[in-house]
Amino acid sequence: MFGESKKELSSLLEMVKEVALRAFRGGAAEDRLDRVVREEPLEIQVNDRSIAVLMRTPGDDHDLVCGFLLTEQVVRRWEDIRSVRYCTQVSHPEALDNVMRVLLKPEVVLDMSRLSRHFFGSSSCGVCGKATLEQLRLVADPVRDGVIITEDALCQMMGKLESTQKAFKATGGLHGAALFSREGEHWVTREDVGRHNAVDKVIGWSWRSREGQSEDGVLVVSGRVSFEIVQKALMARISIIVAVSAPSSLAIETAAAYNITLVGFVRGESFNLYCGGHRIIERSLLC
Amino acid sequence: MFGESKKELSSLLEMVKEVALRAFRGGAAEDRLDRVVREEPLEIQVNDRSIAVLMRTPGDDHDLVCGFLLTEQVVRRWEDIRSVRYCTQVSHPEALDNVMRVLLKPEVVLDMSRLSRHFFGSSSCGVCGKATLEQLRLVADPVRDGVIITEDALCQMMGKLESTQKAFKATGGLHGAALFSREGEHWVTREDVGRHNAVDKVIGWSWRSREGQSEDGVLVVSGRVSFEIVQKALMARISIIVAVSAPSSLAIETAAAYNITLVGFVRGESFNLYCGGHRIIERSLLC
Repeated sequence: MFGESKKELSSLLEMVKEVALRAFRGGAAEDRLDRVVREEPLEIQVNDRSIAVLMRTPGDDHDLVCGFLLTEQVVRRWEDIRSVRYCTQVSHPEALDNVMRVLLKPEVVLDMSRLSRHFFGSSSCGVCGKATLEQLRLVADPVRDGVIITEDALCQMMGKLESTQKAFKATGGLHGAALFSREGEHWVTREDVGRHNAVDKVIGWSWRSREGQSEDGVLVVSGRVSFEIVQKALMARISIIVAVSAPSSLAIETAAAYNITLVGFVRGESFNLYCGGHRIIERSLLC
Repeated sequence: MFGESKKELSSLLEMVKEVALRAFRGGAAEDRLDRVVREEPLEIQVNDRSIAVLMRTPGDDHDLVCGFLLTEQVVRRWEDIRSVRYCTQVSHPEALDNVMRVLLKPEVVLDMSRLSRHFFGSSSCGVCGKATLEQLRLVADPVRDGVIITEDALCQMMGKLESTQKAFKATGGLHGAALFSREGEHWVTREDVGRHNAVDKVIGWSWRSREGQSEDGVLVVSGRVSFEIVQKALMARISIIVAVSAPSSLAIETAAAYNITLVGFVRGESFNLYCGGHRIIERSLLC
């Protein structure tokens, strides 16, 4: 179907669905089949309590759940999680892969107020960008300097993200996110119908595969960068974010306030650096 | 700045912010100024209770709040709303335009369970696409047939959306949504850093400007179509959705289940029709 290995093919089939459509092409119209991205709800239960329903693309659900728990501050450390499993007792057969049960270690307290803060506001009549940044300061320090990358390595990462977005190629309907080492080595690419989910999936992968280490990674995303993407990177202690498209004002302000390097509009050898230039080695310095 | 009228310019300045950046262009780098889209939190209070904080692009906040209240089922009818005003008592001066206070008519009961259903799931172990559609059926009937448009009118709407996305042109960082009459007359375009907000803004505009009538409109969106976009259209009783990009599987299933016409990948004179073809008059039939 896509010229991929058996494992990759099975993962693609999970993310993609074939649908019938009528294709209009400048006056002529015909019925045909095409592929679209799958979207299904995923319920996350923590210690038998339902804490969220995400609309997501199936596949890599363990990564998604772990990433979500970390970036939404339900847990602070990888070690707080005891197990993450699909629920096997569901009322609809179609729901078999759509409920995830998380058990925390007995000593960890589940603090729902951290999660609900996103949805039901402060009631303090003090909501603005500045107040949002101040609120973040209660849970996170600025990231460390450490990671440095070259201008060329940065541009190559974007090409690598694009070449590894298999399901996007098949449907045109997904966001992609990837993690790279500071040397430009590609670690992982994940795709999802939701921009935030793709980021949670690579952060969760990093947590699960690298024992909680994502600090030394570079996050590359296929779309725009909003406040929430920077917030998620901050919670994973990622210090460089590279995006194919535009950042928002609050994304830039948040990145700057927390010592995160933010790069946008990467096209071939061109890009815009919005903040954190101390981590980019310019090509002119290497000549 | 953009060659627009004074009123349009002031609205653009509210949505756009100038930032300093370093532009890398194939080995050469220089510091310059550029524009990015503004992102700020908006707190919505209903009857003195904080019900949501949205990350949104300032501008058209009354439209956004009214659209959000309808499409998230906080209210069912335009007449349920008594007033929508900015809160004037805030603790940060920057927050002056970021808190909206809504008063409902005394006889209207605020049902928070409808709003929280999105975030804190059913706990029924029955979450899947089918269950999601069944749940929707509790609050909405399929839309009526009524509206019919020609193939040519449909393609022209997308061009009109693109030409009216003023802030996108300045920043490359916004989603756009527009409403048209069934005859193809352009009613309104709204832009936002959030895809859902742009849709809520045009639906809210329609509610406020057309006394609750959006049923006869055609919704045109600049990006992809997820389940939530179709759900919002359904709540506004919109029967045709036209998108520049790909729909998800659940978006198509929802549109089909509720008699909504869904069109994607509109490029020039080409597009894909996923369901609801009885509302499209093909060009070949007119010759």
